[in-house]
Amino acid sequence: MNRFLDLAGLARDEILDLLRLAQRLQDQPEPQALAGRILGLVFFNPSLRTLASFQAGMARLGGSSFVITPGQGTWQLETRDGAVMNGGAAEHIREGIPVLASYCDALGVRAFAAGKDLAADLREELFGMIDALCDKPLINLESAMNHPCQALADWRTLDEQGIPERGRFVLSWVWHPRALPLAVPTATLQMAALRGMDVVVARPDGYALPAQVMDRARQLARASGGSVTETADRAAALQGAHVVYAKEWGSTRHYGDADGDARLREGLTDWCVRDSWFDAARPDARLMHCLPVRRNTAVADEVLDGPRSIVRREAFNRLVVQMAVLHRLLKPGVN
Amino acid sequence: MNRFLDLAGLARDEILDLLRLAQRLQDQPEPQALAGRILGLVFFNPSLRTLASFQAGMARLGGSSFVITPGQGTWQLETRDGAVMNGGAAEHIREGIPVLASYCDALGVRAFAAGKDLAADLREELFGMIDALCDKPLINLESAMNHPCQALADWRTLDEQGIPERGRFVLSWVWHPRALPLAVPTATLQMAALRGMDVVVARPDGYALPAQVMDRARQLARASGGSVTETADRAAALQGAHVVYAKEWGSTRHYGDADGDARLREGLTDWCVRDSWFDAARPDARLMHCLPVRRNTAVADEVLDGPRSIVRREAFNRLVVQMAVLHRLLKPGVN
Amino acid sequence: MNRFLDLAGLARDEILDLLRLAQRLQDQPEPQALAGRILGLVFFNPSLRTLASFQAGMARLGGSSFVITPGQGTWQLETRDGAVMNGGAAEHIREGIPVLASYCDALGVRAFAAGKDLAADLREELFGMIDALCDKPLINLESAMNHPCQALADWRTLDEQGIPERGRFVLSWVWHPRALPLAVPTATLQMAALRGMDVVVARPDGYALPAQVMDRARQLARASGGSVTETADRAAALQGAHVVYAKEWGSTRHYGDADGDARLREGLTDWCVRDSWFDAARPDARLMHCLPVRRNTAVADEVLDGPRSIVRREAFNRLVVQMAVLHRLLKPGVN
Repeated sequence: MNRFLDLAGLARDEILDLLRLAQRLQDQPEPQALAGRILGLVFFNPSLRTLASFQAGMARLGGSSFVITPGQGTWQLETRDGAVMNGGAAEHIREGIPVLASYCDALGVRAFAAGKDLAADLREELFGMIDALCDKPLINLESAMNHPCQALADWRTLDEQGIPERGRFVLSWVWHPRALPLAVPTATLQMAALRGMDVVVARPDGYALPAQVMDRARQLARASGGSVTETADRAAALQGAHVVYAKEWGSTRHYGDADGDARLREGLTDWCVRDSWFDAARPDARLMHCLPVRRNTAVADEVLDGPRSIVRREAFNRLVVQMAVLHRLLKPGVN
Repeated sequence: MNRFLDLAGLARDEILDLLRLAQRLQDQPEPQALAGRILGLVFFNPSLRTLASFQAGMARLGGSSFVITPGQGTWQLETRDGAVMNGGAAEHIREGIPVLASYCDALGVRAFAAGKDLAADLREELFGMIDALCDKPLINLESAMNHPCQALADWRTLDEQGIPERGRFVLSWVWHPRALPLAVPTATLQMAALRGMDVVVARPDGYALPAQVMDRARQLARASGGSVTETADRAAALQGAHVVYAKEWGSTRHYGDADGDARLREGLTDWCVRDSWFDAARPDARLMHCLPVRRNTAVADEVLDGPRSIVRREAFNRLVVQMAVLHRLLKPGVN
Repeated sequence: MNRFLDLAGLARDEILDLLRLAQRLQDQPEPQALAGRILGLVFFNPSLRTLASFQAGMARLGGSSFVITPGQGTWQLETRDGAVMNGGAAEHIREGIPVLASYCDALGVRAFAAGKDLAADLREELFGMIDALCDKPLINLESAMNHPCQALADWRTLDEQGIPERGRFVLSWVWHPRALPLAVPTATLQMAALRGMDVVVARPDGYALPAQVMDRARQLARASGGSVTETADRAAALQGAHVVYAKEWGSTRHYGDADGDARLREGLTDWCVRDSWFDAARPDARLMHCLPVRRNTAVADEVLDGPRSIVRREAFNRLVVQMAVLHRLLKPGVN
């Protein structure tokens, strides 16, 4: 394994193997496993958990890391192929990525969607370019349409909580002051489908996930014995839920049109998870969220501070599963 | 010990023990003492010494660290309880702090006073919340009203210089272009009182430290055999001083009122430490300052570049004493 | 050796010795050579390669590092002697540099030219002050008129590529949207002269390097058996070139005058390296650039993506040679 870019692109056995390795590293720490190994981290977009958990994870395995944040201490990097660079960006990723890769043993890159052209974002054009430019093991720290580290952490969290593989997983759109990328809902949906769950995507009209995303999820569900449906009827979706996975994302009807999206979401502020959402769910239903979460707009205090919330555990599991990913990428052949 | 939040809250023996440990780690380095241990550092406010000395201190003890700076690479964190988060902050400390704590073995946090409501700042509301949210050892890297790392470094510096425990310690207000927090003057005053010194706070009218701060210092002085007084008569204060500890802070008469403070300080530019301040001091009197210091507004070049200044040594001692704090927090039971 | 400030100030044997050490550390890694050693890195100006390669280099040798970026997480540092600090800068380098030096075993500092007064920049006033304030080994990470790490990496790259010591080295000005410092062209010119090459500086009228810089280069060339000439006739310069080293820099005729420089460079956009530049060069001629490079304004895609470009290798060699520098500075006596 020298790429960790897309959880749904792995075979189920490979995922289960990563989860077993994560558990083993928890039970029997290997503080020297990656001694002398260096992880480069490039953040085109801001980070809290990803930065801290990757730096901590490398350190717990005896390795080290460096961080590059274009625009903060480092100039902006150009990403457009063929660009005439007479604007703000001082360096192209065609130089930047291979150079940084040459300094380290593995590279992690965060590069969100441009959010203007849905088809381009679905093609993962930017991350595809980064992938082609990097001759070291590469980790997707969130791309236009993916977030495999989050998805793997969430799978582990579902296992830990004893959520049945065939349980009802409601991925629900929630309100946010502005349009956010589709990366997490896409990765979450595909993870739950791959795990074999009965997945319901609850979202208002205008916020359907792209057909291509839904189709892939349905295909994954077919192979795993799960199912994928979608609805704008939130109350129906929440019936019998084992898990409510709350997530904010932008309107696909108004993709790249901030004003259109803003008008549409104006009337949707009741899509804030409250205790009442769980009235018809299973008694022990859980609230999941990848964080960061805006309190009292996306999820109410009463839920985040109550016993249903497992959002902190999801975040902790980022560290746990990423150590397994680092181990696989940087210490191959000895697992 | 799993908190280092307030030097004056420690028993005198605990402080002396930390100072002895600091010396021992200088004399007999322990380059593997904290191998595999990780310190998380969160800076809500800027830092130079604190960042560098904590990262260096962990490295010298064999451990490692990561740094989170909300607003720079990481989004702003909301701190208000119950906030409806539809503004700039993307995450609440109710998630952020426990998540970061879960990635490391100890957390250090810098969070200055809001500077609007003196009573609220005196209650240390924000740091109290952070304290409650962190289930790992916690270090105060400067809070609304405290800076225990600076205070401990200054105690060591006084010892090194042979300043008598009963010596005359003049904490003098000095000029700065704008109102600064009360954290360092408060921590310094209490440290000197706790050490048993005869402390005089010299400050212009309108800049008296809060009654609650002075009262606690007088109480500490009573227990240690020292004394605490205050005056606006700078010349009288400086008489016979062993130490002049210069510090900028905001008007308590105009707390939270930048304009009122600005008008009051307009006429106070002669509160810049010059050689002449030492005319009636002891011949070997020292100039102390926690840094950063503005030259020729707070303290003149002639003093900072002269033999009285021990400000660089104070800064070096930050590293020395913080290594002892880290050792106590992260390697308990073996000291 | 406790300074690495100016490659051309070293004896040829010292340089060859560093290059041999660099190769040895490539062939026989020493992952514990600098265990427990700490490098402090101070960036007054942005960085990508320098930051990443120094942090990676220390890690590969078993050491660690911390990073201070004034203005980003750390306040601005005042550099003017005698300044009355009532403006934006909160701390003077007279405190900042010695304090940071006291926390580490070696300090690296990047501080570009002010770009206003050519004579002052030629005197390296700022870096001279930093040098005087630092009592630990010091590395120049690019100063007003120098970049010794880049120059050493480029020497190694020339050796690796088998470019003859007496080969023709064309340092060519190339277009950039604004005036850039003279540090790299100066260091490159002197490196090539010191190596014994036949150096031609090709630059438009108004962009001649300062006489003092050219004189020193000619002196170095005389001692090494090389030569140094300059011309505005680019086509003539490129005849028979082994290497075209492209670099952007500001007009010396309009030094400190952004408008004058902008008007002059308006008509110079054809100074963008294209394949056709190599028509009269040697068949195996190489394109070098220190990076960051702006594509299709300074150097065209066709050259950067073609077989002549060795810019990525130059960047990789930064890591390789800097490890030798760190080894010499921090592990003296055992090489």
